[in-house]
Amino acid sequence: MKKEKILIGQSGGPTSVTNASFVSSVESAIDKYDLYGALYGFEGLLEEKLIPINEHNLNDILKFKKVPGACLGTCRYYLSDEDIEMIVDNLTKHEIRNVVFSGGNGTMLVLNKIYRVSQSRGYDLKIIGIPKTVDNDLELTDHTPGFGSAARFVALSTRDIGKDLEAMRRFEQVRVIETMGRNSGWIAASSVLARETQEDAPHLVYLPEKEFKLNDFLGEVKESVNTRGYTTVVVSEGIRNGKGELLAQKSLQNNVETSVLGGVSEFLTEKVKKELGFSSRAELLGMSQRSFQMAVSTQDYLESVKIGKKAIELIENDDVNVMISIERVADIPEYSFELNQVMLKDIVKTEKKIPENFLNEAGRPNAEFKNWLRPLAGFDISAYPRII
Amino acid sequence: MKKEKILIGQSGGPTSVTNASFVSSVESAIDKYDLYGALYGFEGLLEEKLIPINEHNLNDILKFKKVPGACLGTCRYYLSDEDIEMIVDNLTKHEIRNVVFSGGNGTMLVLNKIYRVSQSRGYDLKIIGIPKTVDNDLELTDHTPGFGSAARFVALSTRDIGKDLEAMRRFEQVRVIETMGRNSGWIAASSVLARETQEDAPHLVYLPEKEFKLNDFLGEVKESVNTRGYTTVVVSEGIRNGKGELLAQKSLQNNVETSVLGGVSEFLTEKVKKELGFSSRAELLGMSQRSFQMAVSTQDYLESVKIGKKAIELIENDDVNVMISIERVADIPEYSFELNQVMLKDIVKTEKKIPENFLNEAGRPNAEFKNWLRPLAGFDISAYPRII
Repeated sequence: MKKEKILIGQSGGPTSVTNASFVSSVESAIDKYDLYGALYGFEGLLEEKLIPINEHNLNDILKFKKVPGACLGTCRYYLSDEDIEMIVDNLTKHEIRNVVFSGGNGTMLVLNKIYRVSQSRGYDLKIIGIPKTVDNDLELTDHTPGFGSAARFVALSTRDIGKDLEAMRRFEQVRVIETMGRNSGWIAASSVLARETQEDAPHLVYLPEKEFKLNDFLGEVKESVNTRGYTTVVVSEGIRNGKGELLAQKSLQNNVETSVLGGVSEFLTEKVKKELGFSSRAELLGMSQRSFQMAVSTQDYLESVKIGKKAIELIENDDVNVMISIERVADIPEYSFELNQVMLKDIVKTEKKIPENFLNEAGRPNAEFKNWLRPLAGFDISAYPRII
Repeated sequence: MKKEKILIGQSGGPTSVTNASFVSSVESAIDKYDLYGALYGFEGLLEEKLIPINEHNLNDILKFKKVPGACLGTCRYYLSDEDIEMIVDNLTKHEIRNVVFSGGNGTMLVLNKIYRVSQSRGYDLKIIGIPKTVDNDLELTDHTPGFGSAARFVALSTRDIGKDLEAMRRFEQVRVIETMGRNSGWIAASSVLARETQEDAPHLVYLPEKEFKLNDFLGEVKESVNTRGYTTVVVSEGIRNGKGELLAQKSLQNNVETSVLGGVSEFLTEKVKKELGFSSRAELLGMSQRSFQMAVSTQDYLESVKIGKKAIELIENDDVNVMISIERVADIPEYSFELNQVMLKDIVKTEKKIPENFLNEAGRPNAEFKNWLRPLAGFDISAYPRII
């Protein structure tokens, strides 16, 4: 009997655990299905760049389980209506009726469009979305795979860079550490995980959830340096002023609309030097946040593996057009979760921000946030001791 | 009987293993000596900021063995002749005749000055210098403690960031990763450790050992992107043009002479965008290079611990005015080393650069360099697989 086909693809920004889900899906499906990988995400679907996954390359593919990035290649998802039609044409042409794709918000919206077009044509198609974004900004899931590892890297870096500054306090007063997080402060907020006392880094945290006021920032940095002699600051790349404008932004290309964030730490560092006269340095944590393999959270990895397996189970159970979601079942006596599914049509365009109950009055992550984060990023992260 | 005193201090830029040596010295000496720590390096000696290390704080101090930074605080070493005289005054006043200090080139030169002044006054003083710098630019030692861990972080980051770019190649072509290394390329060169084929990152490496020519750089980036579609570049912050000028430099403070390097990756990224039209991003690895605790090299840590112990043995054996050096005894069948001592007066002002036998004709690290580096940074670092 001819096996059914499953097409697997990876979309959006890579994470440290994107391949963990992919390889896990392959492991679960290889015996029962005819498997294909889409190269470069939706681009592979558009341009029929599909590679068979079989006994010839299986051993190579299994080696990627703990490799960061996205081994099939990813894409951005600016797809026109014609593109979506073309994708359904190609799925039909190749008789592919099962699609498993990982990605963030944008990916899920595209998957839903593909589903809708296939429905309107009467083409039976099962689509399973695997949530995967370091930004943790997807609704309808407790958190997103990829986030725990990014949070772990940021928590560890902030603790360690903070200790470096502490040693150098006699000739360097301020470090401004910049994290990812275009629209939400989840990653920046994670920097507090190793903070146990007021003296531990970070001393100040600025998130997009609260309007950024430069004068307040300068006043708080001044007070913090005056109190302890030095200050480690964490800012999200996405902080915005009262008009909703980013403080700094740069383009990846010379004169094209594709822009990436980054640079706000440099901007603020210059302000600290100029306005306060403190010796100051910017630290951009950069792409290591979503790729540094040694900082991968074990929980994040395990959940990604389970989600990859779940995707194949959902296909077997005739679930269609869903995104897998993580439900936090318990925190006490220990963290546990279940995998559920939510309809792709219910995924919304807006990014999930940090809810108010995770922030204190000053708009900074509170103890409740830390308790929520700890199982995802690691119970082994604690503050260092101090002598002076 | 009254115990002899030993004063321990930490100077220069911190590393991930500076405290490993310190705690190891404390462990070795606590029973036989009256121990003191100098706060903020030479500043502590100048201003008599000395803390006793005894049963009251010993347990706290022992906790720092694996903590990055420098738990006593460090200093810069712009010391005048009067400062040196004052330091010897204070050592005499406190009847301290044994000094153990860790740091780099500058620290060793200051230690030698202190020794010379004490000699001229007929004050018996034993000084033991502990080499400690991520830059690996000290002569008379095979390598410096701190370097192996920085090298490890850079090798891992380059491999992982390279894999991230590989996944994104359809919308981002060039990453320029910037490493530490003011005058020598040891840290930047370490980025090649996980490279096994021409397709692995980094694809291009630029070191201060070779004159940097912007046109050559642009030509090589263009060729590399045309060949494989994307390119991971590593540059040392210390690369210089034909006139010996740095390409980019910024000041830590607003209008003060203290300058730090950094920014050349941004400069080059802009050139790549503008001149070649490739989508490009700068990545500064920053202070994580010398502080990211999870990337500490086990060998680097173990050598730092042995060196801390050795310092106390040298004092017991009446060695004076020496720096501990690491001699590489064998690489085959496995790496082994011995600790020796070199006279502080033989330490030279110039930084050790990468020797020619570690570089190929293009001025890039060769296989011999990788073989030399591997035991210091980790045998577990290898390239990732590839599908596309």
